[in-house]
Amino acid sequence: MVWLQKLFTKTGSDDNLEANNYERDWVSLDPEKFGNTKIYFSTHEQIDLYELEELCDSVGWARRPLRKVRKALEHSYLVVSAWEVKGTKKTMIGFARATSDHAFNATIWDVVIHPRFQNKGLGKVLMKYMIRKLRSDDISNVTLFADPQVVDFYRRLGFILDPEGIKGMFWYPD
Amino acid sequence: MVWLQKLFTKTGSDDNLEANNYERDWVSLDPEKFGNTKIYFSTHEQIDLYELEELCDSVGWARRPLRKVRKALEHSYLVVSAWEVKGTKKTMIGFARATSDHAFNATIWDVVIHPRFQNKGLGKVLMKYMIRKLRSDDISNVTLFADPQVVDFYRRLGFILDPEGIKGMFWYPD
Ligand SMILES: CC(C)(COP(=O)(O)OP(=O)(O)OC[C@H]1O[C@@H](n2cnc3c(N)ncnc32)[C@H](O)[C@@H]1OP(=O)(O)O)[C@@H](O)C(=O)NCCC(=O)NCCS
Ligand SMILES: CC(C)(COP(=O)(O)OP(=O)(O)OC[C@H]1O[C@@H](n2cnc3c(N)ncnc32)[C@H](O)[C@@H]1OP(=O)(O)O)[C@@H](O)C(=O)NCCC(=O)NCCS
Repeated sequence: MVWLQKLFTKTGSDDNLEANNYERDWVSLDPEKFGNTKIYFSTHEQIDLYELEELCDSVGWARRPLRKVRKALEHSYLVVSAWEVKGTKKTMIGFARATSDHAFNATIWDVVIHPRFQNKGLGKVLMKYMIRKLRSDDISNVTLFADPQVVDFYRRLGFILDPEGIKGMFWYPD
Repeated sequence: MVWLQKLFTKTGSDDNLEANNYERDWVSLDPEKFGNTKIYFSTHEQIDLYELEELCDSVGWARRPLRKVRKALEHSYLVVSAWEVKGTKKTMIGFARATSDHAFNATIWDVVIHPRFQNKGLGKVLMKYMIRKLRSDDISNVTLFADPQVVDFYRRLGFILDPEGIKGMFWYPD
């Protein structure tokens, strides 16, 4: 079992999530799966673009110009990162971001957990963390575009395909 | 036939689209369909929230709190409006907006043409106008979520359903 200490042991509503924004949300980990590893999530941790590139490399994503990646992060509404801590060294092991109009819609992009940490429940925590933040900001329409091999991952989290026949579409030059 | 005078009579590339941002892009209209009506598109025209509400009412959309609508417009990357001009009076007859990370992705929301002006080619111009602006800003991934009855409208414009099996998904609280 994996859960977020702060997020899920806190009593009451999401009202004071905002106040936690600059803090590290430590994850309670099963020692059988994680040993001595310590992991936290954050919405405000500084992202090193090279470290992010390495993380994306680790799951086989195509490289993107860092200049554009920086711009995309600056203009994302929410950037969540997950960090492994060993002594004084921290390593980014998870990442996701969302664009938003700050009012109605948010769209989640670039969800990734490092292969070394996959299938341990962290992807689920990452997504719940995103959704919880978005909901606490009163954004009700949370959307994403899922690669075919992860549709079921998102489905387990409560994401629905084509609700009421609404279809995701992509523009391609004709 | 309907086309944008500025956008489509201009020679050369999209390079100087930026320079036109504050201008009115007048649409060349077929007098058989439009009579004396004059219509322009703009990315920077001031939007009256009550007028936008009326436009959304006209196509039967649920009302939304104006406070949130204002916030959503402020945090949209691109807001396009279409205006009918009669003498000194202008009326908003079309609208669309996009959220974006300013680098890779844009998602188009709230596409609407007033029923009085539907099926005359203006929706198509509106979408092409959006796409052209987004492309000229080097944003290559243009997405949207289409209601079932307008999937074919978007398909004609080059939007594709589930390319390579990528699926649009919506989160709903379980
Ligand atoms: C997709 C990804 C983020 C999942 O993270 P993860 O930490 O491995 O997932 P979790 O361990 O939290 O899995 C949560 C649940 O989803 C299931 N699951 C995980 N990956 C799945 C997949 N690809 N398909 C279906 N179910 C999946 C798990 O079995 C688990 O089920 P349970 O709740 O019944 O135990 C991770 O595999 C990844 O980074 N993949 C590569 C990048 C990628 O494809 N990202 C998505 C792009 S749209
Ligand atoms: C959808 C909408 C924006 C289309 O605007 P429009 O000005 O009527 O569309 P156009 O006249 O430019 O149509 C362009 C082409 O699409 C076709 N088309 C228009 N509406 C269509 C629809 N609902 N389904 C399929 N094709 C459609 C037209 O026949 C035309 O085809 P052609 O190029 O072969 O002549 C408009 O009908 C509208 O505002 N609808 C209500 C709001 C809505 O549903 N918005 C979309 C939410 S996702």
